[in-house]
Amino acid sequence: MAHTVSIIGLQSIGLIEPGDNVSKKICEAADSENVKLLDDDVIVVSQKIVSKAEGELVDISTIKPGAKARAVAKRTKKSSQLLELILRDSAKILRVEKRTIIVKRKDGLICLNAGVDKSNVNGATIYARLPRNADRSAQKLRAELEQLSGRKIAVIIADTYSRPSRLGQVEFAIGISGIDPVIDYRGKRDLFGYELKFKYVAIADEIAAAAELVMGQGTEAIPVAIIRGLSRLQRTDKAGLSKKLSLGRQKDLFRRIL
Amino acid sequence: MAHTVSIIGLQSIGLIEPGDNVSKKICEAADSENVKLLDDDVIVVSQKIVSKAEGELVDISTIKPGAKARAVAKRTKKSSQLLELILRDSAKILRVEKRTIIVKRKDGLICLNAGVDKSNVNGATIYARLPRNADRSAQKLRAELEQLSGRKIAVIIADTYSRPSRLGQVEFAIGISGIDPVIDYRGKRDLFGYELKFKYVAIADEIAAAAELVMGQGTEAIPVAIIRGLSRLQRTDKAGLSKKLSLGRQKDLFRRIL
Repeated sequence: MAHTVSIIGLQSIGLIEPGDNVSKKICEAADSENVKLLDDDVIVVSQKIVSKAEGELVDISTIKPGAKARAVAKRTKKSSQLLELILRDSAKILRVEKRTIIVKRKDGLICLNAGVDKSNVNGATIYARLPRNADRSAQKLRAELEQLSGRKIAVIIADTYSRPSRLGQVEFAIGISGIDPVIDYRGKRDLFGYELKFKYVAIADEIAAAAELVMGQGTEAIPVAIIRGLSRLQRTDKAGLSKKLSLGRQKDLFRRIL
Repeated sequence: MAHTVSIIGLQSIGLIEPGDNVSKKICEAADSENVKLLDDDVIVVSQKIVSKAEGELVDISTIKPGAKARAVAKRTKKSSQLLELILRDSAKILRVEKRTIIVKRKDGLICLNAGVDKSNVNGATIYARLPRNADRSAQKLRAELEQLSGRKIAVIIADTYSRPSRLGQVEFAIGISGIDPVIDYRGKRDLFGYELKFKYVAIADEIAAAAELVMGQGTEAIPVAIIRGLSRLQRTDKAGLSKKLSLGRQKDLFRRIL
Protein backbone atom coordinates (compact mmCIF):
# COMPACT_ATOMS: atom_id res chain seq x y z
CA MET A 1 0.00 0.00 0.00
CA ALA A 2 1.05 3.55 -0.75
CA HIS A 3 2.40 5.57 2.19
CA THR A 4 0.44 8.83 2.41
CA VAL A 5 1.18 12.06 4.24
CA SER A 6 -1.64 14.62 4.36
CA ILE A 7 -1.32 18.39 4.38
CA ILE A 8 -4.58 19.64 5.85
CA GLY A 9 -5.23 23.37 5.56
CA LEU A 10 -7.65 24.83 8.11
CA GLN A 11 -9.94 27.32 6.39
CA SER A 12 -12.01 28.62 9.29
CA ILE A 13 -9.36 30.20 11.52
CA GLY A 14 -10.50 33.71 10.60
CA LEU A 15 -8.60 36.93 11.18
CA ILE A 16 -6.27 37.11 14.17
CA GLU A 17 -6.07 40.20 16.39
CA PRO A 18 -3.55 41.12 19.09
CA GLY A 19 -4.26 39.10 22.23
CA ASP A 20 -6.16 36.32 20.43
CA ASN A 21 -5.74 32.77 21.70
CA VAL A 22 -4.33 31.06 18.60
CA SER A 23 -4.32 27.52 19.99
CA LYS A 24 -7.97 27.76 20.97
CA LYS A 25 -8.81 29.03 17.47
CA ILE A 26 -6.85 26.16 15.92
CA CYS A 27 -8.73 23.57 17.95
CA GLU A 28 -12.09 25.19 17.21
CA ALA A 29 -11.31 25.31 13.48
CA ALA A 30 -10.11 21.69 13.49
CA ASP A 31 -13.32 20.66 15.25
CA SER A 32 -15.62 22.57 12.94
CA GLU A 33 -13.80 21.18 9.88
CA ASN A 34 -13.99 17.62 11.23
CA VAL A 35 -10.23 17.31 11.61
CA LYS A 36 -9.53 15.87 15.04
CA LEU A 37 -5.92 16.39 16.13
CA LEU A 38 -4.00 13.11 16.32
CA ASP A 39 -0.78 12.01 18.00
CA ASP A 40 2.29 13.02 15.95
CA ASP A 41 0.47 15.66 13.94
CA VAL A 42 2.76 18.58 13.13
CA ILE A 43 0.87 21.87 13.28
CA VAL A 44 2.39 24.49 11.00
CA VAL A 45 1.40 28.05 11.88
CA SER A 46 2.20 31.09 9.76
CA GLN A 47 4.53 33.59 11.39
CA LYS A 48 2.12 36.37 10.55
CA ILE A 49 -0.70 35.19 12.81
CA VAL A 50 1.72 34.51 15.67
CA SER A 51 3.13 38.03 15.31
CA LYS A 52 -0.40 39.46 15.25
CA ALA A 53 -1.57 37.49 18.28
CA GLU A 54 1.57 38.53 20.19
CA GLY A 55 0.95 42.17 19.29
CA GLU A 56 4.10 42.57 17.18
CA LEU A 57 2.42 45.19 15.00
CA VAL A 58 3.93 48.63 14.64
CA ASP A 59 2.36 51.74 13.16
CA ILE A 60 5.38 53.20 11.41
CA SER A 61 3.74 56.63 11.19
CA THR A 62 4.43 56.92 14.95
CA ILE A 63 8.15 56.19 14.54
CA LYS A 64 10.76 58.93 14.73
CA PRO A 65 13.59 57.71 12.51
CA GLY A 66 17.18 58.14 13.63
CA ALA A 67 20.07 59.43 11.51
CA LYS A 68 21.12 56.00 10.30
CA ALA A 69 17.60 55.05 9.20
CA ARG A 70 17.28 58.35 7.33
CA ALA A 71 20.64 57.84 5.63
CA VAL A 72 19.90 54.26 4.55
CA ALA A 73 16.36 55.14 3.44
CA LYS A 74 17.76 57.60 0.90
CA ARG A 75 19.37 54.70 -0.95
CA THR A 76 16.03 52.85 -1.18
CA LYS A 77 12.38 53.35 -2.04
CA LYS A 78 11.44 52.73 1.58
CA SER A 79 10.49 55.36 4.13
CA SER A 80 12.91 56.27 6.89
CA GLN A 81 10.27 55.15 9.41
CA LEU A 82 10.17 51.66 7.91
CA LEU A 83 13.98 51.62 7.87
CA GLU A 84 14.04 52.53 11.56
CA LEU A 85 11.79 49.55 12.32
CA ILE A 86 13.99 47.23 10.25
CA LEU A 87 17.14 48.49 11.99
CA ARG A 88 15.67 47.79 15.44
CA ASP A 89 15.84 44.04 14.80
CA SER A 90 19.11 44.10 12.83
CA ALA A 91 22.64 43.44 14.02
CA LYS A 92 24.20 44.27 10.64
CA ILE A 93 23.13 45.52 7.24
CA LEU A 94 24.50 43.23 4.51
CA ARG A 95 23.00 44.80 1.38
CA VAL A 96 20.98 47.86 0.47
CA GLU A 97 19.10 48.02 -2.82
CA LYS A 98 16.19 50.16 -4.00
CA ARG A 99 13.54 47.68 -2.88
CA THR A 100 15.45 45.30 -0.66
CA ILE A 101 17.54 45.44 2.48
CA ILE A 102 19.29 42.24 3.54
CA VAL A 103 20.32 42.13 7.18
CA LYS A 104 21.69 39.80 9.76
CA ARG A 105 19.13 39.99 12.53
CA LYS A 106 20.09 40.22 16.19
CA ASP A 107 18.98 36.58 16.52
CA GLY A 108 21.38 35.52 13.73
CA LEU A 109 18.89 34.99 10.89
CA ILE A 110 19.98 36.46 7.56
CA CYS A 111 16.91 37.74 5.76
CA LEU A 112 15.22 40.51 3.81
CA ASN A 113 13.95 43.55 5.70
CA ALA A 114 14.72 41.84 9.04
CA GLY A 115 11.46 39.93 8.57
CA VAL A 116 9.40 43.14 8.86
CA ASP A 117 6.46 42.70 6.50
CA LYS A 118 3.26 44.39 5.38
CA SER A 119 1.36 41.55 3.71
CA ASN A 120 -1.95 40.53 5.25
CA VAL A 121 -1.66 43.23 7.91
CA ASN A 122 -4.53 45.71 8.12
CA GLY A 123 -3.84 49.47 8.13
CA ALA A 124 -1.79 51.32 5.53
CA THR A 125 1.07 52.14 7.92
CA ILE A 126 0.98 49.00 10.08
CA TYR A 127 3.79 46.45 9.72
CA ALA A 128 4.40 43.12 11.47
CA ARG A 129 7.71 42.20 13.10
CA LEU A 130 8.77 38.60 13.69
CA PRO A 131 7.81 37.09 17.06
CA ARG A 132 10.36 38.05 19.75
CA ASN A 133 11.34 34.39 20.14
CA ALA A 134 9.61 32.09 17.69
CA ASP A 135 10.87 28.91 19.37
CA ARG A 136 9.27 30.06 22.61
CA SER A 137 6.07 30.93 20.73
CA ALA A 138 6.08 27.42 19.24
CA GLN A 139 6.64 25.88 22.66
CA LYS A 140 3.73 27.82 24.13
CA LEU A 141 1.43 26.84 21.26
CA ARG A 142 2.45 23.20 21.60
CA ALA A 143 1.83 23.13 25.35
CA GLU A 144 -1.61 24.69 24.88
CA LEU A 145 -2.57 22.50 21.90
CA GLU A 146 -1.48 19.33 23.71
CA GLN A 147 -3.48 20.42 26.73
CA LEU A 148 -6.59 21.19 24.66
CA SER A 149 -6.42 18.09 22.45
CA GLY A 150 -4.87 15.50 24.77
CA ARG A 151 -2.50 14.55 21.92
CA LYS A 152 1.29 14.63 21.57
CA ILE A 153 1.90 17.00 18.70
CA ALA A 154 4.65 19.23 17.33
CA VAL A 155 4.50 22.88 16.24
CA ILE A 156 6.40 24.70 13.51
CA ILE A 157 6.13 28.43 12.90
CA ALA A 158 6.80 29.08 9.22
CA ASP A 159 7.91 32.21 7.40
CA THR A 160 8.67 33.04 3.78
CA TYR A 161 12.35 33.34 2.81
CA SER A 162 14.35 34.28 -0.24
CA ARG A 163 17.28 31.98 -0.95
CA PRO A 164 20.78 32.51 -2.30
CA SER A 165 21.29 31.50 -5.96
CA ARG A 166 17.73 30.22 -6.32
CA LEU A 167 14.71 32.11 -7.65
CA GLY A 168 11.58 32.51 -5.57
CA GLN A 169 10.71 32.13 -1.95
CA VAL A 170 9.90 29.08 0.15
CA GLU A 171 8.76 28.64 3.73
CA PHE A 172 11.40 28.01 6.40
CA ALA A 173 10.84 26.81 9.96
CA ILE A 174 11.65 29.79 12.21
CA GLY A 175 10.09 28.41 15.41
CA ILE A 176 10.04 24.73 16.34
CA SER A 177 8.77 22.69 19.28
CA GLY A 178 8.48 18.95 19.77
CA ILE A 179 10.61 17.51 16.96
CA ASP A 180 14.24 17.54 15.95
CA PRO A 181 14.52 19.89 12.95
CA VAL A 182 17.00 17.60 11.17
CA ILE A 183 17.29 13.88 10.53
CA ASP A 184 20.85 12.64 10.58
CA TYR A 185 21.38 9.81 8.11
CA ARG A 186 25.17 9.80 8.44
CA GLY A 187 26.36 6.30 9.26
CA LYS A 188 23.02 4.76 8.25
CA ARG A 189 22.95 2.31 5.36
CA ASP A 190 21.47 2.72 1.90
CA LEU A 191 19.52 0.16 -0.14
CA PHE A 192 22.70 -1.78 -0.91
CA GLY A 193 24.27 -1.62 2.53
CA TYR A 194 26.69 1.23 1.76
CA GLU A 195 27.13 3.83 4.45
CA LEU A 196 25.49 7.21 3.80
CA LYS A 197 28.19 9.86 4.27
CA PHE A 198 26.45 13.14 3.77
CA LYS A 199 22.74 13.11 4.42
CA TYR A 200 21.40 15.46 6.97
CA VAL A 201 17.82 16.24 6.05
CA ALA A 202 16.28 19.56 7.16
CA ILE A 203 12.89 17.96 7.79
CA ALA A 204 11.48 21.02 9.61
CA ASP A 205 12.10 23.20 6.55
CA GLU A 206 10.57 20.53 4.30
CA ILE A 207 7.48 20.42 6.52
CA ALA A 208 7.20 24.22 6.38
CA ALA A 209 7.54 24.15 2.58
CA ALA A 210 4.91 21.41 2.32
CA ALA A 211 2.49 23.45 4.44
CA GLU A 212 2.76 26.37 2.01
CA LEU A 213 1.20 24.13 -0.66
CA VAL A 214 -2.14 24.62 1.09
CA MET A 215 -1.53 27.88 2.93
CA GLY A 216 -0.72 30.19 0.02
CA GLN A 217 0.34 33.81 0.35
CA GLY A 218 -2.52 36.11 -0.50
CA THR A 219 -6.24 35.83 -0.05
CA GLU A 220 -6.22 32.10 0.60
CA ALA A 221 -6.50 32.88 4.32
CA ILE A 222 -5.23 29.50 5.45
CA PRO A 223 -2.71 30.36 8.19
CA VAL A 224 -2.55 26.87 9.73
CA ALA A 225 -1.87 23.44 8.24
CA ILE A 226 -1.73 20.04 9.90
CA ILE A 227 0.88 17.64 8.52
CA ARG A 228 -0.30 14.12 9.27
CA GLY A 229 1.23 10.71 8.72
CA LEU A 230 4.96 11.53 8.96
CA SER A 231 6.87 8.40 9.89
CA ARG A 232 10.35 9.77 10.58
CA LEU A 233 9.70 12.30 13.35
CA GLN A 234 12.21 12.32 16.18
CA ARG A 235 10.47 13.75 19.21
CA THR A 236 12.35 16.06 21.55
CA ASP A 237 11.46 18.47 24.34
CA LYS A 238 14.53 20.65 23.83
CA ALA A 239 14.16 24.43 23.56
CA GLY A 240 15.67 26.76 20.96
CA LEU A 241 15.42 24.19 18.17
CA SER A 242 15.28 26.61 15.23
CA LYS A 243 18.80 27.85 16.10
CA LYS A 244 20.12 24.50 14.87
CA LEU A 245 19.01 25.30 11.29
CA SER A 246 20.71 28.68 11.15
CA LEU A 247 24.35 28.12 10.14
CA GLY A 248 27.02 30.47 11.38
CA ARG A 249 29.43 31.74 8.75
CA GLN A 250 32.28 29.42 9.79
CA LYS A 251 30.13 26.37 9.20
CA ASP A 252 28.61 27.61 5.94
CA LEU A 253 30.27 25.73 3.06
CA PHE A 254 28.99 28.39 0.64
CA ARG A 255 30.57 31.36 2.46
CA ARG A 256 32.43 33.75 0.18
CA ILE A 257 31.87 31.74 -3.01
CA LEU A 258 28.49 33.06 -4.21
CA MET B 1 -14.10 22.11 5.02
CA ALA B 2 -10.35 21.68 5.32
CA HIS B 3 -8.37 21.86 2.09
CA THR B 4 -6.17 18.77 1.85
CA VAL B 5 -3.16 18.01 -0.34
CA SER B 6 -1.94 14.40 -0.30
CA ILE B 7 1.64 13.19 -0.68
CA ILE B 8 1.33 9.60 -1.83
CA GLY B 9 4.55 7.56 -1.78
CA LEU B 10 4.61 4.56 -4.11
CA GLN B 11 6.23 1.62 -2.33
CA SER B 12 6.25 -1.05 -5.03
CA ILE B 13 8.44 0.58 -7.70
CA GLY B 14 11.31 -1.80 -6.95
CA LEU B 15 14.92 -1.34 -8.01
CA ILE B 16 15.61 0.45 -11.29
CA GLU B 17 18.23 -0.79 -13.77
CA PRO B 18 19.68 0.94 -16.84
CA GLY B 19 17.15 0.81 -19.68
CA ASP B 20 14.12 0.33 -17.42
CA ASN B 21 10.87 2.01 -18.44
CA VAL B 22 10.25 4.23 -15.41
CA SER B 23 6.83 5.53 -16.50
CA LYS B 24 5.52 2.00 -17.01
CA LYS B 25 6.81 1.04 -13.56
CA ILE B 26 5.14 4.10 -12.04
CA CYS B 27 1.79 3.24 -13.60
CA GLU B 28 2.07 -0.42 -12.56
CA ALA B 29 2.96 0.56 -8.99
CA ALA B 30 0.12 3.10 -8.86
CA ASP B 31 -2.30 0.43 -10.10
CA SER B 32 -1.12 -2.24 -7.68
CA GLU B 33 -1.32 0.24 -4.77
CA ASN B 34 -4.81 1.37 -5.79
CA VAL B 35 -3.69 4.89 -6.60
CA LYS B 36 -5.17 5.80 -9.97
CA LEU B 37 -3.45 8.80 -11.55
CA LEU B 38 -5.75 11.85 -11.71
CA ASP B 39 -5.72 15.08 -13.70
CA ASP B 40 -3.36 17.67 -12.15
CA ASP B 41 -1.39 15.11 -10.14
CA VAL B 42 2.26 16.13 -9.86
CA ILE B 43 4.51 13.08 -10.05
CA VAL B 44 7.79 13.63 -8.21
CA VAL B 45 10.55 11.24 -9.25
CA SER B 46 13.90 10.95 -7.50
CA GLN B 47 16.89 11.95 -9.63
CA LYS B 48 18.60 8.71 -8.72
CA ILE B 49 16.16 6.40 -10.51
CA VAL B 50 16.10 8.65 -13.57
CA SER B 51 19.91 8.57 -13.70
CA LYS B 52 19.87 4.78 -13.31
CA ALA B 53 17.23 4.23 -15.99
CA GLU B 54 19.15 6.54 -18.35
CA GLY B 55 22.36 4.61 -17.69
CA GLU B 56 24.20 7.50 -16.04
CA LEU B 57 26.22 5.12 -13.88
CA VAL B 58 29.98 5.16 -13.99
CA ASP B 59 32.44 2.61 -12.60
CA ILE B 60 35.14 4.97 -11.37
CA SER B 61 37.68 2.11 -11.23
CA THR B 62 37.74 2.31 -15.06
CA ILE B 63 38.56 6.04 -15.06
CA LYS B 64 42.06 7.32 -15.79
CA PRO B 65 42.30 10.58 -13.87
CA GLY B 66 43.96 13.60 -15.46
CA ALA B 67 46.50 15.88 -13.82
CA LYS B 68 43.89 18.35 -12.49
CA ALA B 69 41.82 15.58 -10.86
CA ARG B 70 44.96 14.15 -9.25
CA ALA B 71 45.99 17.56 -7.94
CA VAL B 72 42.57 18.40 -6.50
CA ALA B 73 42.14 14.89 -5.03
CA LYS B 74 45.26 15.41 -2.89
CA ARG B 75 43.46 18.20 -1.05
CA THR B 76 40.52 15.90 -0.24
CA LYS B 77 39.66 12.43 1.04
CA LYS B 78 38.26 11.52 -2.37
CA SER B 79 39.99 9.40 -4.99
CA SER B 80 41.43 11.01 -8.12
CA GLN B 81 39.06 8.83 -10.18
CA LEU B 82 36.02 10.26 -8.39
CA LEU B 83 37.47 13.75 -8.82
CA GLU B 84 37.85 13.15 -12.55
CA LEU B 85 34.17 12.19 -12.78
CA ILE B 86 33.14 15.29 -10.81
CA LEU B 87 35.28 17.53 -13.04
CA ARG B 88 33.65 16.18 -16.20
CA ASP B 89 30.36 17.88 -15.28
CA SER B 90 31.93 21.00 -13.78
CA ALA B 91 32.53 24.39 -15.33
CA LYS B 92 34.32 25.79 -12.26
CA ILE B 93 35.48 24.60 -8.86
CA LEU B 94 34.25 26.98 -6.17
CA ARG B 95 35.52 25.25 -3.00
CA VAL B 96 37.66 22.26 -2.09
CA GLU B 97 37.48 20.77 1.39
CA LYS B 98 38.44 17.36 2.74
CA ARG B 99 35.02 15.81 2.17
CA THR B 100 33.32 18.33 -0.06
CA ILE B 101 33.86 19.92 -3.45
CA ILE B 102 31.47 22.70 -4.45
CA VAL B 103 31.32 23.36 -8.17
CA LYS B 104 29.39 25.34 -10.70
CA ARG B 105 28.23 22.68 -13.15
CA LYS B 106 28.32 23.17 -16.89
CA ASP B 107 24.52 23.56 -16.78
CA GLY B 108 24.85 26.40 -14.24
CA LEU B 109 23.75 24.57 -11.07
CA ILE B 110 25.94 25.27 -8.03
CA CYS B 111 26.15 22.09 -5.98
CA LEU B 112 28.28 19.63 -4.06
CA ASN B 113 30.34 17.11 -6.04
CA ALA B 114 28.65 18.20 -9.29
CA GLY B 115 25.72 16.02 -8.26
CA VAL B 116 27.83 12.83 -8.53
CA ASP B 117 26.59 10.51 -5.80
CA LYS B 118 27.04 7.02 -4.41
CA SER B 119 23.92 6.55 -2.27
CA ASN B 120 21.51 3.79 -3.31
CA VAL B 121 23.76 2.76 -6.20
CA ASN B 122 24.90 -0.89 -6.26
CA GLY B 123 28.59 -1.72 -6.66
CA ALA B 124 31.41 -0.37 -4.48
CA THR B 125 32.96 1.73 -7.28
CA ILE B 126 29.77 2.70 -9.16
CA TYR B 127 28.57 6.32 -8.96
CA ALA B 128 25.55 8.03 -10.49
CA ARG B 129 25.76 11.30 -12.43
CA LEU B 130 22.82 13.65 -12.85
CA PRO B 131 20.63 13.09 -15.93
CA ARG B 132 22.16 14.83 -18.99
CA ASN B 133 19.13 17.13 -19.22
CA ALA B 134 16.68 16.66 -16.37
CA ASP B 135 14.03 18.93 -17.92
CA ARG B 136 14.05 16.75 -21.02
CA SER B 137 13.86 13.62 -18.83
CA ALA B 138 10.85 15.14 -17.07
CA GLN B 139 9.21 15.98 -20.40
CA LYS B 140 9.68 12.43 -21.64
CA LEU B 141 8.27 10.96 -18.43
CA ARG B 142 5.29 13.29 -18.59
CA ALA B 143 4.51 12.44 -22.22
CA GLU B 144 4.68 8.72 -21.43
CA LEU B 145 2.69 8.97 -18.19
CA GLU B 146 -0.03 11.06 -19.86
CA GLN B 147 -0.18 8.53 -22.69
CA LEU B 148 -0.40 5.56 -20.30
CA SER B 149 -2.90 7.14 -17.89
CA GLY B 150 -4.95 9.39 -20.16
CA ARG B 151 -4.55 12.17 -17.56
CA LYS B 152 -2.99 15.64 -17.71
CA ILE B 153 -0.22 15.49 -15.13
CA ALA B 154 3.06 17.24 -14.31
CA VAL B 155 6.46 15.75 -13.52
CA ILE B 156 9.21 17.00 -11.21
CA ILE B 157 12.59 15.33 -10.89
CA ALA B 158 13.91 16.00 -7.38
CA ASP B 159 17.43 15.92 -5.99
CA THR B 160 18.94 16.61 -2.58
CA TYR B 161 20.76 19.93 -2.14
CA SER B 162 22.77 21.65 0.56
CA ARG B 163 21.87 25.30 1.07
CA PRO B 164 23.88 28.40 1.92
CA SER B 165 23.62 29.56 5.55
CA ARG B 166 21.13 26.85 6.47
CA LEU B 167 21.86 23.45 8.04
CA GLY B 168 20.77 20.26 6.33
CA GLN B 169 19.63 19.31 2.89
CA VAL B 170 16.25 19.58 1.18
CA GLU B 171 14.97 18.42 -2.18
CA PHE B 172 15.07 20.86 -5.10
CA ALA B 173 13.29 20.53 -8.45
CA ILE B 174 16.04 19.91 -11.03
CA GLY B 175 13.78 18.75 -13.87
CA ILE B 176 10.28 20.09 -14.47
CA SER B 177 7.56 19.49 -17.04
CA GLY B 178 3.95 20.65 -17.18
CA ILE B 179 3.82 23.40 -14.56
CA ASP B 180 5.35 26.81 -14.02
CA PRO B 181 8.00 26.39 -11.29
CA VAL B 182 7.10 29.72 -9.67
CA ILE B 183 3.88 31.51 -8.75
CA ASP B 184 4.11 35.24 -9.14
CA TYR B 185 2.03 37.06 -6.54
CA ARG B 186 3.42 40.50 -7.33
CA GLY B 187 0.60 42.92 -8.01
CA LYS B 188 -1.96 40.56 -6.46
CA ARG B 189 -3.87 41.71 -3.38
CA ASP B 190 -3.62 40.47 0.18
CA LEU B 191 -6.45 39.88 2.65
CA PHE B 192 -6.87 43.60 3.19
CA GLY B 193 -6.57 44.72 -0.42
CA TYR B 194 -2.94 45.86 -0.20
CA GLU B 195 -0.74 45.00 -3.14
CA LEU B 196 1.80 42.21 -2.56
CA LYS B 197 5.19 43.58 -3.56
CA PHE B 198 7.57 40.73 -3.14
CA LYS B 199 6.04 37.29 -3.34
CA TYR B 200 7.35 34.92 -5.89
CA VAL B 201 6.81 31.42 -4.59
CA ALA B 202 9.11 28.61 -5.77
CA ILE B 203 6.27 26.10 -5.82
CA ALA B 204 8.29 23.44 -7.70
CA ASP B 205 10.91 23.39 -4.92
CA GLU B 206 8.17 23.25 -2.29
CA ILE B 207 6.59 20.28 -4.08
CA ALA B 208 9.98 18.52 -4.24
CA ALA B 209 10.53 19.19 -0.51
CA ALA B 210 7.04 17.89 0.31
CA ALA B 211 7.71 14.69 -1.64
CA GLU B 212 10.79 13.98 0.49
CA LEU B 213 8.49 13.68 3.50
CA VAL B 214 7.42 10.26 2.16
CA MET B 215 10.43 9.39 0.00
CA GLY B 216 13.22 9.46 2.57
CA GLN B 217 16.90 8.96 1.80
CA GLY B 218 18.00 5.50 2.81
CA THR B 219 16.25 2.19 2.88
CA GLU B 220 12.76 3.64 2.53
CA ALA B 221 12.90 2.74 -1.17
CA ILE B 222 10.16 5.14 -2.17
CA PRO B 223 11.55 6.88 -5.26
CA VAL B 224 8.23 8.27 -6.53
CA ALA B 225 5.55 10.38 -4.85
CA ILE B 226 2.29 11.71 -6.22
CA ILE B 227 1.26 15.17 -4.98
CA ARG B 228 -2.50 15.41 -5.28
CA GLY B 229 -4.95 18.22 -4.64
CA LEU B 230 -2.82 21.28 -5.43
CA SER B 231 -5.06 24.18 -6.32
CA ARG B 232 -2.56 26.77 -7.56
CA LEU B 233 -0.83 24.95 -10.43
CA GLN B 234 -0.22 27.00 -13.56
CA ARG B 235 0.04 24.57 -16.46
CA THR B 236 2.59 25.19 -19.20
CA ASP B 237 4.10 23.17 -22.04
CA LYS B 238 7.35 25.17 -22.11
CA ALA B 239 10.68 23.37 -22.11
CA GLY B 240 13.72 24.03 -19.92
CA LEU B 241 11.62 25.05 -16.91
CA SER B 242 14.15 24.23 -14.19
CA LYS B 243 16.53 26.88 -15.58
CA LYS B 244 14.13 29.50 -14.29
CA LEU B 245 14.88 28.48 -10.67
CA SER B 246 18.66 28.73 -11.02
CA LEU B 247 19.67 32.35 -10.44
CA GLY B 248 22.67 33.78 -12.21
CA ARG B 249 25.09 35.71 -10.01
CA GLN B 250 23.94 39.14 -11.19
CA LYS B 251 20.39 38.42 -10.09
CA ASP B 252 21.36 36.82 -6.78
CA LEU B 253 20.65 39.30 -4.00
CA PHE B 254 22.89 37.29 -1.67
CA ARG B 255 25.99 37.41 -3.90
CA ARG B 256 29.19 38.35 -2.07
CA ILE B 257 27.53 38.91 1.30
CA LEU B 258 27.58 35.42 2.83
